[in-house]
Amino acid sequence: MAGRFINMRNLKFTLHELMESHKTSTCDPFGGRSKKSIDLVLDAALEFSKKALYPIFETMDRNPPELKNGTVAVNPEVRNIMQTLGKDGWIAAPFPEKWGGEEMPATLLHAVYFIFAAANYSGSVYSGLTTGAAKLILTYGSEYLKNTFLPPMLDGKWQGTMALTEPEAGSSLGDLITSAKPMIDRELFLISGEKIFISAGDHNGVDNIVHLLLARIDGAPAGVKGISLFVVPKFRVENDDSGKDKLVNNDVTVTQTFHKLGYRGAPITALSFGDKGDCRGWLVGEPNKGLSYMFQMMNGARLEVGMGATSIAAAAYESALDYTKQRKQGRRISDGKKNSDNKGDLDKNGKPIKQNEPVPIIEHLDVKRMLLFQRAVWEGSLSLILQCSIYEDIAKSLSKNEMDSSKQTEDKSNFNIMEEKEKYHLLLELLTPVAKTFPSEMGILATSQSIQCFGGYGYCEDFPVEQHFRDMRIHAIHEGTTGIQAMDLLGRKVVMQDGKALKLFCSEVQKTIEKTLSYKNSDLALMADELNQSLKILIETTQSLGAMAFAKGAEAYLGNATLYLEMFGYVVIAWQWLSQSLIAMQKLLGSLNSSGDQAPASNNTKRSDIANKSDRLFYEGKILVCKYFFYHELPKIKTLAYTLTNSAPISMSVSTEHFTI
Amino acid sequence: MAGRFINMRNLKFTLHELMESHKTSTCDPFGGRSKKSIDLVLDAALEFSKKALYPIFETMDRNPPELKNGTVAVNPEVRNIMQTLGKDGWIAAPFPEKWGGEEMPATLLHAVYFIFAAANYSGSVYSGLTTGAAKLILTYGSEYLKNTFLPPMLDGKWQGTMALTEPEAGSSLGDLITSAKPMIDRELFLISGEKIFISAGDHNGVDNIVHLLLARIDGAPAGVKGISLFVVPKFRVENDDSGKDKLVNNDVTVTQTFHKLGYRGAPITALSFGDKGDCRGWLVGEPNKGLSYMFQMMNGARLEVGMGATSIAAAAYESALDYTKQRKQGRRISDGKKNSDNKGDLDKNGKPIKQNEPVPIIEHLDVKRMLLFQRAVWEGSLSLILQCSIYEDIAKSLSKNEMDSSKQTEDKSNFNIMEEKEKYHLLLELLTPVAKTFPSEMGILATSQSIQCFGGYGYCEDFPVEQHFRDMRIHAIHEGTTGIQAMDLLGRKVVMQDGKALKLFCSEVQKTIEKTLSYKNSDLALMADELNQSLKILIETTQSLGAMAFAKGAEAYLGNATLYLEMFGYVVIAWQWLSQSLIAMQKLLGSLNSSGDQAPASNNTKRSDIANKSDRLFYEGKILVCKYFFYHELPKIKTLAYTLTNSAPISMSVSTEHFTI
Repeated sequence: MAGRFINMRNLKFTLHELMESHKTSTCDPFGGRSKKSIDLVLDAALEFSKKALYPIFETMDRNPPELKNGTVAVNPEVRNIMQTLGKDGWIAAPFPEKWGGEEMPATLLHAVYFIFAAANYSGSVYSGLTTGAAKLILTYGSEYLKNTFLPPMLDGKWQGTMALTEPEAGSSLGDLITSAKPMIDRELFLISGEKIFISAGDHNGVDNIVHLLLARIDGAPAGVKGISLFVVPKFRVENDDSGKDKLVNNDVTVTQTFHKLGYRGAPITALSFGDKGDCRGWLVGEPNKGLSYMFQMMNGARLEVGMGATSIAAAAYESALDYTKQRKQGRRISDGKKNSDNKGDLDKNGKPIKQNEPVPIIEHLDVKRMLLFQRAVWEGSLSLILQCSIYEDIAKSLSKNEMDSSKQTEDKSNFNIMEEKEKYHLLLELLTPVAKTFPSEMGILATSQSIQCFGGYGYCEDFPVEQHFRDMRIHAIHEGTTGIQAMDLLGRKVVMQDGKALKLFCSEVQKTIEKTLSYKNSDLALMADELNQSLKILIETTQSLGAMAFAKGAEAYLGNATLYLEMFGYVVIAWQWLSQSLIAMQKLLGSLNSSGDQAPASNNTKRSDIANKSDRLFYEGKILVCKYFFYHELPKIKTLAYTLTNSAPISMSVSTEHFTI
Repeated sequence: MAGRFINMRNLKFTLHELMESHKTSTCDPFGGRSKKSIDLVLDAALEFSKKALYPIFETMDRNPPELKNGTVAVNPEVRNIMQTLGKDGWIAAPFPEKWGGEEMPATLLHAVYFIFAAANYSGSVYSGLTTGAAKLILTYGSEYLKNTFLPPMLDGKWQGTMALTEPEAGSSLGDLITSAKPMIDRELFLISGEKIFISAGDHNGVDNIVHLLLARIDGAPAGVKGISLFVVPKFRVENDDSGKDKLVNNDVTVTQTFHKLGYRGAPITALSFGDKGDCRGWLVGEPNKGLSYMFQMMNGARLEVGMGATSIAAAAYESALDYTKQRKQGRRISDGKKNSDNKGDLDKNGKPIKQNEPVPIIEHLDVKRMLLFQRAVWEGSLSLILQCSIYEDIAKSLSKNEMDSSKQTEDKSNFNIMEEKEKYHLLLELLTPVAKTFPSEMGILATSQSIQCFGGYGYCEDFPVEQHFRDMRIHAIHEGTTGIQAMDLLGRKVVMQDGKALKLFCSEVQKTIEKTLSYKNSDLALMADELNQSLKILIETTQSLGAMAFAKGAEAYLGNATLYLEMFGYVVIAWQWLSQSLIAMQKLLGSLNSSGDQAPASNNTKRSDIANKSDRLFYEGKILVCKYFFYHELPKIKTLAYTLTNSAPISMSVSTEHFTI
């Protein structure tokens, strides 16, 4: 197995164009980084991925973690990966300088994750999980916790985890029962309970595991209001007689490592805390606020899951593309007549007439269609996730301005900044469930099409796509299933602040539509109209559902929420595709910095403006994939709108007994 | 792992209702079999599956076949399975009595395959492949071939295979190069070449392997017109000195057994023929007619692939259903308000107010929706494949009548019979690519939803659904990929005899629509209208494509053939669902044998007519799943129609270079 796992040009296009359009005189989401310095980061990430992650993509899958003598044995390279990522500053990257970081913006960090995960998804999660857990400690932890846990975590010597799920509390976190009994120290608790499905919950690639664990302090309120967050290490740090630090077993037991369909290179474990009554946990922040702390991290984690799915789809596409260019089979449809005339016929010397040679299968329209679909999914998803990330970075950059300007006297500017910040925050909140789900669900179909491009070989372990198909399937499940994301979108995000987030979203989409419409008579203007119509359908559907909620109750409103999320996804990705195509068209016209009134007279772009043939093909390709999305995928929202609004969900008429036969 | 892998009630409903409606005074597709005798067959198949196939479903997957010392070692139970299926007459079932068979109709045989494959798909293919290969020998082979090969094959002692694919000839069989050099005996040839992806191409569960192999006789025309069919055994039968039969190595070498995503219990092998120049093959039938012989078998094999996919989806559904009934998590949406009011609140004694207990997850509307989808797919697919099978049986039964009546003098009746026969033959031809593809493609989504019903557990090997998801994925590839089926449907079947097959299909659907419309004001009548509209859209789309072919050529016509096949699938399955629901409604009304004018005044069926509560729930369930299909799935054809007819395929504007970046 060898080959390209990523299209860097595409990543850089997406990243830089996004940056350009969001950089203003008052806001630099990239914190002063130049294009060149960003490319250096990306190239370094690629170099590392090629050297350390990609070579063990297959091996990690074929030799999954095993529970041996109370610890989970993982691929020996994991230790190396963690230490290098620690030493070279990748784990600490988003942290302040004080902690060895460089306050890397989310957009760039996610682009880096994209590269790592495309090379080897399982191999990339160890460090990502550690960064996430460390961020929680940084934000809410005491000085003691920060000083004790952050340095070894950020160095890649200790693993961080998120320990939420319990055997009886998966999607329903309010039911968790892991308990925390106060000890003398106000910060210190005795932990007792069980957790399952904990990613990297134990392994021998690090010296310690630091669980960010949810538990219920004795006497806390029932439900979600009584959940607190704790740091629970595998080994706790104590002083030995000479006052030096030593690691002491903290009574955390691995009871199982799950055997899984894919994502096999990372251990997913079941853990037992406090079997001997000696498991200590340090409270993070205030009691009973654990869930809201955790959700801050979960939101980021959801974008990262979406990015993981995108990476896998991207890597599978690269394999499929490579294969379809090499593999020769069959003839073009347009050669068909000639061939069928020839078939079996003999020439005047009685020799069989030679048929046309077989063509590379990428020449077949059906194969091209499958490749277009894969691109539409992963390039659209990448664009959306970076869009969300930049909202995060803008909000952060505005916070800085806010602090700076708070020294000033002018209140009005500060108010504007707050409003702006809220806008980006709301956009991020609204789009997170979409950015998590679209890549995860559509990625199943995309990797399935990658397999299909290979025919029988795609089903065999000789090529990586069967693993990509398996690795992909986790994403619609972890960090909140698709059903949970759908409830979040329709039940919470769409209705919050009287639908403010949705209105803000519509206005962002409208901006792109208007910019595109200025190129009159172009193919893109037609698509802008289409997107405008689609946005209308989305809004009307949302309103119909609102009316249904009023008439028939919450079940009627939320029963088909998953379809609503699907519909939302198509509209959002269409918007991203139109944005990408707009830039591509401007580049083709050589008019990126003009006001847009240089619209072409016909649909044909002035090709001469692009000196470089490969550039021209790249930008033309972008517009063609966009067309594919608009004519094959986006129209699906009409069916979804019909199903959502035609009647109350059919599932409401179906009783459990109807399934008992 | 234990549990129910099949819903027998559903199978029997589908089978018997189908039988009832197609049995006439002049035609009995079931050859005089009573309902009771059919049920005995099904129950025996279930018994065998429970005892022999289901228990090794997981083991066969975890310990896939291995190539050891020149032969492929499979699960030791395979020998037992083959011998029992031989001894008990299952392998010979469709054969005439002379060969130990009972001329089992295709409909019943496929119902049996459904049971076997739901228990263990990999375990079920060994015998099915043998039956298929033996049928080819029976139909086209010489007396010598029949007498030599059929008895041990039908006894389950020798394995049969289909050896078509070569490294450079997969979908494009016309390019195959395996050669056959005539020996002195006119029937005997020296074979030389390589085959890949040969299912059960070698294993130690039998004493010999009999390949039905395609090769090119020296000097034969190029392309598909020069392909002949041969019997090539692993060991050939020769006389020893004393005149007794002995088995002699026939120079067939296994070079590889493929490691696969799923379907791991069956060895898929690469074979080399004639490395030492001593591989003999016996010509079957006439030279250069091999492909048409093979296709007779391939058509049956395609229905069986569709059935395999259906079985896997059915088994995965049963697991998901079982789990969702057991697993408790979360509260109903309608309980939401109450819970969120309560959450964390304390009663007047300061104790937390008890929340509602978690409910089994089947109570959640989103889970119900996922279960409805799975049922819609597998029950609809089952119905279609049995529908196709009964067309085959009717045609066969009419052939018999034809032969009987040929003794009579009346020519007209014979002519009618021929026309009738052709009708069913054409319907079968038209629907075969749909019956192969709909279950295979939708089955990927259905088993994916089965996983989703389990949440994280669905991704783990603790439950069988992850294996079902892997086993499923082969079906869109083997026996002709989805793309090939699509070209067959739109390029060949739809246009043959000036569209006669399509007209016949429409008239069959119309009959169901008219019968349903007689139940005025019922939910079903609304759905009948919907189906009528859908049929119109299908026809209009077909016509638009025809016009596009005329204006823009064959590429424009066929470029999106896969979408046309998808669209066709939705219409066909909607028709099957309406047929099933019609029967269900009639049963609910107690009016199955009436003319249909006992339509209910309202949508509520007269429940009192059904004595048995489980019957009532079963029939109500059928109508609800039908509704699900009509309001969630069928409307998708509108999008497909738009994409197919709005413009020529976008893939035509995309050059290979657009993918080179």
